[in-house]
Amino acid sequence: MDRDTPSAALLVVGTEVLTAKVLDENGPYAARALRDAGFRLAAVCTLPDRVDDIVEAVDRERRRRTWVFTSGGIGPTHDDVTVGAVARALGRPLRRDLQLEAFIRAGHERWTGSREAPEALLRMADVPEGTELAGGDFPLLRVENVVMLPGVPQFFRAQLDRFLPGLATAPFRLASLFLGVGEDRIASALEEVARAHPDVEIGSYPRFDGADHLVKVTLESKDEGRVLAARAALRDRLPAGAVLRSEGP
Amino acid sequence: MDRDTPSAALLVVGTEVLTAKVLDENGPYAARALRDAGFRLAAVCTLPDRVDDIVEAVDRERRRRTWVFTSGGIGPTHDDVTVGAVARALGRPLRRDLQLEAFIRAGHERWTGSREAPEALLRMADVPEGTELAGGDFPLLRVENVVMLPGVPQFFRAQLDRFLPGLATAPFRLASLFLGVGEDRIASALEEVARAHPDVEIGSYPRFDGADHLVKVTLESKDEGRVLAARAALRDRLPAGAVLRSEGP
Repeated sequence: MDRDTPSAALLVVGTEVLTAKVLDENGPYAARALRDAGFRLAAVCTLPDRVDDIVEAVDRERRRRTWVFTSGGIGPTHDDVTVGAVARALGRPLRRDLQLEAFIRAGHERWTGSREAPEALLRMADVPEGTELAGGDFPLLRVENVVMLPGVPQFFRAQLDRFLPGLATAPFRLASLFLGVGEDRIASALEEVARAHPDVEIGSYPRFDGADHLVKVTLESKDEGRVLAARAALRDRLPAGAVLRSEGP
Repeated sequence: MDRDTPSAALLVVGTEVLTAKVLDENGPYAARALRDAGFRLAAVCTLPDRVDDIVEAVDRERRRRTWVFTSGGIGPTHDDVTVGAVARALGRPLRRDLQLEAFIRAGHERWTGSREAPEALLRMADVPEGTELAGGDFPLLRVENVVMLPGVPQFFRAQLDRFLPGLATAPFRLASLFLGVGEDRIASALEEVARAHPDVEIGSYPRFDGADHLVKVTLESKDEGRVLAARAALRDRLPAGAVLRSEGP
């Protein structure tokens, strides 16, 4: 993998996902969006709404990834603990951000007609010292390499879509081969080619559901030449007639 | 949370999920199945097909959960690295299991008519020393508290469904309140009730998509009496007319 490929981890803060009340939409959306932006997504972890769990995961991931995204837990209720946990993981105190407070007050007034915003709502403006805000419906919260996104899917998507384009890097190139033979017939060829082409990510996905192929092999890299070379090397080593069709460059 | 509620973590080994080639079905399925069996699912992490990542995650999770389940990476190709990684995480050597090898040979002969199984396929019988097999279409692999499940969804589901019933504990009891007021109006009531009822897991989920309610509050515990007491306490503290309807006991 290219050294200048930015990496990312996503931490989905969601007891509701772990307890099967809600199907997480943000993980799959982020995987697609980060791939399209040329990022390598290195891990997606779904955690409960518990401070200790979030602190540990943020601390672990932020040291080894270009970006860490969190999803959820930034609202006004007792189970919204992400922002405080990020502050603790980074060793930064929580500070009331006056710009964010003004934004929340204005939103509350628009929504309810009342100029008296409840304290619980204003506590959403207590963010880790040094947090930067980026504009939008609700400002995006970033501190160091940690980006705190909302859990509500439409807001998560809107903020991620606003954040990523400025950071996008070269896209990945993907080639796929659909095979009519099982994995046992191609395992040694795959192993040789994977070893000889370490910069190409090669995956092998068997099907047992009556699809029109038995295995799909994917070859991926940011360098199209390398993808083509690995694919040619693999085709040379596969049993005659094994390739039913191919997709990609 | 009850101390005798068994906990679980799921490690989805899947570069294909992280690179947005495949939508993970096993995480959501496991969340539902584990919940129904009375388990507390403490984390779901999706990792790439990389030995070091899997070793670290298995080592971290196995020490703190009753059960650790892995999904994927147990096939015959170069990207199937889960079993070796579990062996390393547990400090156990890989040993060829003769019963599993015989099973693989028989399956290969049924499938292809050939008595000569390729070595790549037989390597699937190299498992951590001490691994126990449970019968079925393909034997379930368990060593200590780590259960290695296949990534192919229909096999994952079949093995999990066979494994869990013997371990099922008392079910969770869930009550839900659907509210016509926003989170800012209920945050302090929720906080008080959550503090006074620490054994009930209380979640608050706002909606911004034009649903018939603005917030859904969930109250959950294995003790129905505690759920009812927390719900009654919350109803007492909510603004008049806030509750549109309720579900559950």
